[in-house]
Amino acid sequence: MKKSYLLKKIHISPPQVLSITFLITILFGAVLLYLPISTVDPISFLDALFTATSATTVTGLVVLSTGNDFTLFGQTVIMVLMQIGGLGLMTFAVLIVMLLGKKIGLRGRILIQQSFNQYSLGGMIRLVRTIFIFTFAIEFLAAVFLAIRWVPEHGWGVGLYTSIFHSVSAFNNAGFSLWDDSLMGYVGDPTVNIIITLLFITGGIGFTVLYDMWTTKDFRHLSLHSKIMLVGTLVVNIIAMLFLFVSEYSNMQTLGSLTLGDKLWASYFQAVTPRTAGFNSLDIGSMETGSIVLITLLMFIGAGSASTGSGIKLTTFFVILLVVAAHLNGKKEAVIFKRAIPSHLLERSLAIVFISMSAIFIGILILSYTESAPFEWIIFEAFSAFGTVGLSMGLTGELSSVGKLVIMALMFIGRIGPVTLAFALARQHREPVSHPKGDVFTG
Amino acid sequence: MKKSYLLKKIHISPPQVLSITFLITILFGAVLLYLPISTVDPISFLDALFTATSATTVTGLVVLSTGNDFTLFGQTVIMVLMQIGGLGLMTFAVLIVMLLGKKIGLRGRILIQQSFNQYSLGGMIRLVRTIFIFTFAIEFLAAVFLAIRWVPEHGWGVGLYTSIFHSVSAFNNAGFSLWDDSLMGYVGDPTVNIIITLLFITGGIGFTVLYDMWTTKDFRHLSLHSKIMLVGTLVVNIIAMLFLFVSEYSNMQTLGSLTLGDKLWASYFQAVTPRTAGFNSLDIGSMETGSIVLITLLMFIGAGSASTGSGIKLTTFFVILLVVAAHLNGKKEAVIFKRAIPSHLLERSLAIVFISMSAIFIGILILSYTESAPFEWIIFEAFSAFGTVGLSMGLTGELSSVGKLVIMALMFIGRIGPVTLAFALARQHREPVSHPKGDVFTG
Ligand SMILES: [K+]
Ligand SMILES: [K+]
Repeated sequence: MKKSYLLKKIHISPPQVLSITFLITILFGAVLLYLPISTVDPISFLDALFTATSATTVTGLVVLSTGNDFTLFGQTVIMVLMQIGGLGLMTFAVLIVMLLGKKIGLRGRILIQQSFNQYSLGGMIRLVRTIFIFTFAIEFLAAVFLAIRWVPEHGWGVGLYTSIFHSVSAFNNAGFSLWDDSLMGYVGDPTVNIIITLLFITGGIGFTVLYDMWTTKDFRHLSLHSKIMLVGTLVVNIIAMLFLFVSEYSNMQTLGSLTLGDKLWASYFQAVTPRTAGFNSLDIGSMETGSIVLITLLMFIGAGSASTGSGIKLTTFFVILLVVAAHLNGKKEAVIFKRAIPSHLLERSLAIVFISMSAIFIGILILSYTESAPFEWIIFEAFSAFGTVGLSMGLTGELSSVGKLVIMALMFIGRIGPVTLAFALARQHREPVSHPKGDVFTG
Repeated sequence: MKKSYLLKKIHISPPQVLSITFLITILFGAVLLYLPISTVDPISFLDALFTATSATTVTGLVVLSTGNDFTLFGQTVIMVLMQIGGLGLMTFAVLIVMLLGKKIGLRGRILIQQSFNQYSLGGMIRLVRTIFIFTFAIEFLAAVFLAIRWVPEHGWGVGLYTSIFHSVSAFNNAGFSLWDDSLMGYVGDPTVNIIITLLFITGGIGFTVLYDMWTTKDFRHLSLHSKIMLVGTLVVNIIAMLFLFVSEYSNMQTLGSLTLGDKLWASYFQAVTPRTAGFNSLDIGSMETGSIVLITLLMFIGAGSASTGSGIKLTTFFVILLVVAAHLNGKKEAVIFKRAIPSHLLERSLAIVFISMSAIFIGILILSYTESAPFEWIIFEAFSAFGTVGLSMGLTGELSSVGKLVIMALMFIGRIGPVTLAFALARQHREPVSHPKGDVFTG
C-alpha cells in the first residue's frame, strides 16, 4: 500500500506508469543493443532504438536482420525485451482489470478478484506470479515441441536456442524471427505451423479468458467476454482462412505453386498471424491486393484485451459489428449469448476505433512525404506498426530516418494507446449495478 | 395528410420513399441518356446508367465525356438529373428536419417550423417553394456572372448555355463540367474561381444554415448547428488551403509552374472542392501523395446536413473532434459556443463514420479484385464515389463493368446513406427536454 500512496502523492496515473516504464525499457534496451557486443558490425543508435522499440512493443518490424546482424547477446536482449513488452503489458492490463473490477463488475474479473483478493498486496503478487508461471510453462512446453523439430535440423545448441527464441517471440505476439524470411521455410511444416500459431493465439486471447476457461470449464458458464473472444476468434479465423485460400489459390508467387496440403497450412497461418503475431510463411509483398486489404483489416482488429497482442481488440470490433447489425435489423439493442450490449460499450469502442484511425492517418500522411515507396506499402506498414503486427510489404527495410521515427511512434502508441484509452474510458463510466446487461473489455 | 396516411398503410418510411424516388429517377434518366438523341455515338446501357447515377447522386465521376459524347439534349438530361438529385435531397432533408424538430428541438428547426407551420400541408408546400425559389434565384444570378466571363469567350449561345450548366452543376455540388479537364483552363481566373466556389459552398452548407442566417443576422443568435457550420467551414478551408499551397508549391505538374496569384487561386479551389463539389482546376492525378491523403479526408468529411453536398458531414466530424479533444484534455464534456455536446450525438456521429468506412472498405475490397490499377487510385475513387465528390485520379475512365457497378453502388449509398442513417438514429433518440445541451444535425 506504501507504493500506491507514493504514486498518489506525485500524481502519476497507472497509464503514465506504463508509458514511462515502456520508455525506460526501450531506452535501456537500445543502449544494450548499441553496445559492440550486441552486433556483428557497428550499427547506428537510431537502428538500435528502432529495434528496441519494435521488440518492446512486440511488433517485429526490423531494419536489421535479427539472425545475421545481431550476436547471440544482441538476440538475447531482443528476446528479453519481447518478454517484458508482451508479458509485462498483459500483466499490467490484468491488474488494471482487477482494480477496475469493483466498479464495472464482470464475471471474469470477479473470479480473479475472489481467487487472489486484489485488496492485498499479497493477492496482487500471487496473481502476477501465476501469470508468470503460466507464461513460462507454456513457453517451455512449446520450446520442447519446437526442439523436436529443430534440434535434428540445426544440432543441439542452435536447435534449442532457436526453439526458445521463437517460442518466446510467438507467445508474446512479437513476430521476431531468426530467419530473414520469417517462417517461409516451414510453410507446410505441421509442427511449426501448429506450435507457433497455438502459442500466439493463446498469448493473444487474453489472460482473463484463459483464467476463466481454467476455472469454469463449462462454456455456458463462461463470462460474456470469454464467450465473445472464443467464438469470435474461431469465426474470424475461419472466414479469413477461406478468404485467403480462394484469393491466393492461383497466385504463383504465394499459394499457386504449393500442394493442396501446404496451401491449407499457408492459408491458415496467414489468416491467424495478422492479429497480431506478425510471423509469415508466405511473401506478404507478393499477395493479391484483396488479400492485403483483408490482412490490413485483421491487423487493425487485433487480438484480445489483457493479452500479449495489440490492435483495437476483437471485442471492440464485435461490439460495433453486433450493435450495427442490430440497428440495421431494426432491433433496439444488440443481444449476444442472451446479454444486451450496453450503449456505453458502443461509445467506448467507437472512440477507440476513431482515435486509432486518426493516429494511423497522421502516420500515413507524414510517411507519404518522407518515403518514396508505393502508397499501399505506406498504408500497410502504418497499420502493421500501430497494430504491433510486424508484417511488412517491404517499406520498413527502406525507411528514411524520419520514417523510422514515425513507425516507432506508431508502434509505441499502438501498444500503449488502446489499453490506456480503455482504462481512461472505463474509469469515467460508473453504471448503476442493477442493469441486467453484459460487459466486455475493449481496447 | 391523406398521403401520409397512405404511406402509413403500405408501411413505407421516409428513407424508403427517398431511395425508391432516387432509383426511379436514375432508371428514367438512364433510359433517356440511352436514346440515340442523347449521344453523338451509341453508348452501352451500363454507361447510360452510370452517367444517370453519377448525375442524380451529384457525384460527377464520368465514363464518357459530358461535353463531347453527349448532345445538347443528353447534357440537358444530365443537368436536370443533377438538379433533382441535389435540390431534391436537400428539400427532402429539410422536410425531415422539420418533422423531427418537434422531438429534438433545435433553434434552426424551430425557426423553420414557426415560419412555415409544418403541421399543415400548406406550410410544407410553402417551405418547398421557398427552397426552390431560393435555389433558382442563386443559380440564375450566378449564371449571369459566369456569362459575363464566358459569353465573350464562346459567343451568346454556347456562352449562356455553358454558364447555366456549370451554375446548376456547382450549386448542386455535382461537379459535372462540359470540359474534359474540368476547370483546369480557368485555374487563375478570378470570376470562375469565385462564382463556382461560392455556388457550391452555398449549396453545401445546408439550407437550415442559410435560413438561420437570413432570419437571424446576428452571429451570436444563430443556432449551434449554424455556428459550427460557418466557423467549421472557414477553419477547414483555410487549413486545407495552406496545406495544399505548401505541399504542391514546387510540384511542377501542379502549382510549380504557376504565378503566385494563380498558386493561391489553385490552392483555394482545390482546398474547397473536395467537400463535395468535385470540380478541379489542377490535375488531381499529378498531386503529391500527401495532398491526396488530405483530399481523401476532406472527401470523407463532406459538406453540411440538409445540403446539396454529401459525405459524413462537417458537423459529424466536428462533434467527434471536439469530444475527443475534450477527453484528451481530461474534461468531462466538450463545450463549444457555450453549449455542451450531448453524448448521444457522439454515438450517432461515430456510427455514421463507422458505417461509411465499412461501405468504402467493402468497395475497395471488391475493386482491388476487379480493377488492375494502382491501389491509391482505387482508394481515392472509392472515397470520391461514396462522398459523391467526383474527383478522380484516373480510375473511373478505365473501370471494368463490375467496377462500374461497385462505384455506382458507392455513389448511391453515399448520397442516400448518411441522411437515412441520421434520420433513423435521430428518430430513435428521445431526450428529456430539460437538458441545457446543444444539438446539431449529423449525417
Ligand atoms: K507482432
Ligand atoms: K460532386
